[in-house]
Amino acid sequence: MNTTIPKANVYEKTGLPEMGLRNYWYPVFATWRLKIRRPKAIRILGEEIVLFRNKNQVFALNNQCAHRGARLSEGSCIYPHTDTLTCPYHGWTYSGETGKCVAKLMEGPKTKISVEARVKTYPVREHLGIIWLFIGDMPAVPLEEDLPECLSNTQEWHTIATWRTYNCNWRPLNDNLCYDLHAPFVHRNSPELIFQPIFPFASKVTTTKLEDGKGLGYTARGGISEENYPNLGKFPPPSEAFWRKLNPIGRGKELNPQTSQATKLYGIKYRHMSRLPTVTLVGRPSGDYFMCRWVTPIDSKRTLFYSVNAYRRKSKITTILDKLSWMLWHSWVHDWIFSDQDKKIVEEVRSDREQLSLSDAGVISWRKFMVENARNPNDGNKPKL
Amino acid sequence: MNTTIPKANVYEKTGLPEMGLRNYWYPVFATWRLKIRRPKAIRILGEEIVLFRNKNQVFALNNQCAHRGARLSEGSCIYPHTDTLTCPYHGWTYSGETGKCVAKLMEGPKTKISVEARVKTYPVREHLGIIWLFIGDMPAVPLEEDLPECLSNTQEWHTIATWRTYNCNWRPLNDNLCYDLHAPFVHRNSPELIFQPIFPFASKVTTTKLEDGKGLGYTARGGISEENYPNLGKFPPPSEAFWRKLNPIGRGKELNPQTSQATKLYGIKYRHMSRLPTVTLVGRPSGDYFMCRWVTPIDSKRTLFYSVNAYRRKSKITTILDKLSWMLWHSWVHDWIFSDQDKKIVEEVRSDREQLSLSDAGVISWRKFMVENARNPNDGNKPKL
Amino acid sequence: MNTTIPKANVYEKTGLPEMGLRNYWYPVFATWRLKIRRPKAIRILGEEIVLFRNKNQVFALNNQCAHRGARLSEGSCIYPHTDTLTCPYHGWTYSGETGKCVAKLMEGPKTKISVEARVKTYPVREHLGIIWLFIGDMPAVPLEEDLPECLSNTQEWHTIATWRTYNCNWRPLNDNLCYDLHAPFVHRNSPELIFQPIFPFASKVTTTKLEDGKGLGYTARGGISEENYPNLGKFPPPSEAFWRKLNPIGRGKELNPQTSQATKLYGIKYRHMSRLPTVTLVGRPSGDYFMCRWVTPIDSKRTLFYSVNAYRRKSKITTILDKLSWMLWHSWVHDWIFSDQDKKIVEEVRSDREQLSLSDAGVISWRKFMVENARNPNDGNKPKL
Repeated sequence: MNTTIPKANVYEKTGLPEMGLRNYWYPVFATWRLKIRRPKAIRILGEEIVLFRNKNQVFALNNQCAHRGARLSEGSCIYPHTDTLTCPYHGWTYSGETGKCVAKLMEGPKTKISVEARVKTYPVREHLGIIWLFIGDMPAVPLEEDLPECLSNTQEWHTIATWRTYNCNWRPLNDNLCYDLHAPFVHRNSPELIFQPIFPFASKVTTTKLEDGKGLGYTARGGISEENYPNLGKFPPPSEAFWRKLNPIGRGKELNPQTSQATKLYGIKYRHMSRLPTVTLVGRPSGDYFMCRWVTPIDSKRTLFYSVNAYRRKSKITTILDKLSWMLWHSWVHDWIFSDQDKKIVEEVRSDREQLSLSDAGVISWRKFMVENARNPNDGNKPKL
Repeated sequence: MNTTIPKANVYEKTGLPEMGLRNYWYPVFATWRLKIRRPKAIRILGEEIVLFRNKNQVFALNNQCAHRGARLSEGSCIYPHTDTLTCPYHGWTYSGETGKCVAKLMEGPKTKISVEARVKTYPVREHLGIIWLFIGDMPAVPLEEDLPECLSNTQEWHTIATWRTYNCNWRPLNDNLCYDLHAPFVHRNSPELIFQPIFPFASKVTTTKLEDGKGLGYTARGGISEENYPNLGKFPPPSEAFWRKLNPIGRGKELNPQTSQATKLYGIKYRHMSRLPTVTLVGRPSGDYFMCRWVTPIDSKRTLFYSVNAYRRKSKITTILDKLSWMLWHSWVHDWIFSDQDKKIVEEVRSDREQLSLSDAGVISWRKFMVENARNPNDGNKPKL
Repeated sequence: MNTTIPKANVYEKTGLPEMGLRNYWYPVFATWRLKIRRPKAIRILGEEIVLFRNKNQVFALNNQCAHRGARLSEGSCIYPHTDTLTCPYHGWTYSGETGKCVAKLMEGPKTKISVEARVKTYPVREHLGIIWLFIGDMPAVPLEEDLPECLSNTQEWHTIATWRTYNCNWRPLNDNLCYDLHAPFVHRNSPELIFQPIFPFASKVTTTKLEDGKGLGYTARGGISEENYPNLGKFPPPSEAFWRKLNPIGRGKELNPQTSQATKLYGIKYRHMSRLPTVTLVGRPSGDYFMCRWVTPIDSKRTLFYSVNAYRRKSKITTILDKLSWMLWHSWVHDWIFSDQDKKIVEEVRSDREQLSLSDAGVISWRKFMVENARNPNDGNKPKL
């Protein structure tokens, strides 16, 4: 009798939890989308959460009334000058700050409210036009502790953020975004790269722990831009090569960032880095731009992909030009078309078998780094440092 | 490895079965919707049932041919002057009365038909324009035994019934309909109550077994219509109060039914009652109207909500006026808008945790009563009395 | 606590595997639908497979890259003059012939390719405008070994094939297509049979192993075309009988094929046969036509039904007339309307209980034959003979 047997999952061996790394800050919602007095249900790392905004502060609570289990996201902010959200069912009113029930509107002001009448709160920050939540089992660290410099230092950098929902677990997407050697193949015909030779294929990737210990820097050396394969022919195939008239620019220009302006002018050691929890940064040789890609698990089968474009502030004019170039070019060419080339593949990955290879050096290192270095609430005060 | 763990359900502790109380009559289908010779598949208490009408009598069978499992609801009434339904597949023909196979049309009239060639029958009654089924494991009691007086005594009462399907288990809906103190909060801005002060909040609810032992009567005392909550402000909020110009009428008028016409004229002891299996009655102080809300489990995730409006017959004129007032006012204001305010909440209840409170006195009593008093086919002849 | 309990399945006792009989050829896709360089994902016997065509040959691989699990059906044939398919993710390129990875396009031609870098291949044949796959765990037998003569001998026969997807397990459909005595009942009012008396009801069905040992021949004797049932009346009901003006033709004409032209002229012993794996043939008395119905399991809940009409070649004119008559009459009257009468029933069968009867003699024999005679890769060289 061959009935359907649940398949093994290759990630079970890696030690990476299905629902994501707890005890980190994650970008979860665009700040402009959360209107005053309009509670919003979201799901992050498998937890059901209600976001709400009273006056101008945002709060996040577990989306379940302690009383009879109604979803608080169906409730309302009937006391808008306070930090409270009121359950739709019997009017239990919770403080967004403490999660405590401060009134049971059906029982009058004199009723007893036990200490159990409370819901879990989530630390919230609004930053860069994004609502960030700390999901975990320990007191929140400061948000800045989890941000790369180009996202935390708003004096020096300005940003534009977009997001997409992927219908897959966070782990295949995380593999895709770290130093995974698929870009020259998957994106070779994307408009972003189309008139240039395809990226060199790096034959050697080495990874080094970042100075702050929070991630890995990737160094890729060697590499070839076209090759002849026995019995097959050239890659890229000649039919795809005739339009590659430009000299390489941008990421395609050079493998070794040591010689770039990024390194010489700004001391940027790695143009490609992955950081905890699930963040990958890719910079331009100029050192003036990083694309910061943040993976936020929703549940076991859906993942939020936050892409933050960070531009170095130079003058008001260049800031405007950065925004214009994003709107006219980068927004659709990269954040839409380029990313969708990955989305189509990643959502179709079958994770019951794998056979890692030379091109997976970055993926292997990053998976290992995550497991060994991720915050653990039982690690004593390590995450507090 | 944090995989998805099925959540506990608070109802498991109550002893209330997920699929509903067996061995009771339930309203299942509008009589006008079952056309002659048009079998109809329904699901009640998790059981798949086919209803069919030959000439003018209705029958109900388990919706699975004993032979090869075809759904009888795909079959047809090819002998309309009999009580039979014929399976679509090989023509096994069943008596709606006995459930016995009376002919195998592919095998000729002389073939042997074993006693196992039968399907389960369900006792059926048409009453008040509704098809009622007895779902259980014992011989059916008379329908009247399960009906409140305002539904059984058609000499004294006339009725109008509507129904809705709720996408939730029957238990949260049952909690909602019994004496649960949410109405002043949930419905405070429904058009039915909008110009009146909101209901008083009853601070004391007591429950008493009905004289026939089949349910509970609720008595609510005390109660306040508006209050001042420290650090929050008034409830109802002043922004919602300015249009409350009328004096209270109807249910909002008085807490103690003892002083109402219902009690004085008709001897009605309780204007709010719950009865087995899952029926709640709410009456007007006049004693001339009851709203009878019947919860019929479909399966573990869907529930049929039958709402029967019962009006005391006085004269032909008042009967017509009752019907008119239902059509013009009550139908949309109560059966649609008022009920949908609950539907939105109840369908979103998460039943994995709860923390009962003062306002749940009615719910607690009613849950307990159901478990202790529901019919049990192994209780000897108790239900036959 | 009555929670939802998974129902037993009557087929578990039969020994017929839920996902179908392995180690046979199955029709899986229309040859014209697989365009050059357009890989196509299909599912057969629960296995995920990618079909692709380079130049004009078709290949079939397991639809999962050995590397990181991407679905190869998202990939492309970038070397169209070869037999290869390239994974969409990192460019691993597989031979359709051997399933071996022949190049890792991101790693250059000199990278080492281990013997584990391969995917399962499926033997493929194009025949009669259909792509056939051998699904199993042993070397493929020749396709012809699994075909009835009217499908293998294209000198003598020409064919027209259609297909439908059924939303049910393959076993209820297989029961339906073998000698199951439902046709006179289910199809009595189909346009194909409408002016004739309904088929006689065979009262005795006997089954005989075919000479090649690969299936069963059915012989039906006795039988009645209308009957009087006590307390019910006639079958077919008089209201359905008045239009039955024609003399019986085609299948309705005679029960005993021994007297037909098929037997006398062509030596066809059985006009109704079932053959392994899941094929049923029904022929006309003329011996010039067989309807060949092939059941291809997709997964546990979906099944592909391939219907191949086989006509004996006589002259170019008759071949054109056969095709015309199929287009104008048989296509919609049989392959569409007649088959859909079964589809509606079979998709609604509940397989948790059954009670076999006289009319199931053919079904019982065929189920038994399948279990006892199906190829088993551990049977030594039996299937090679």
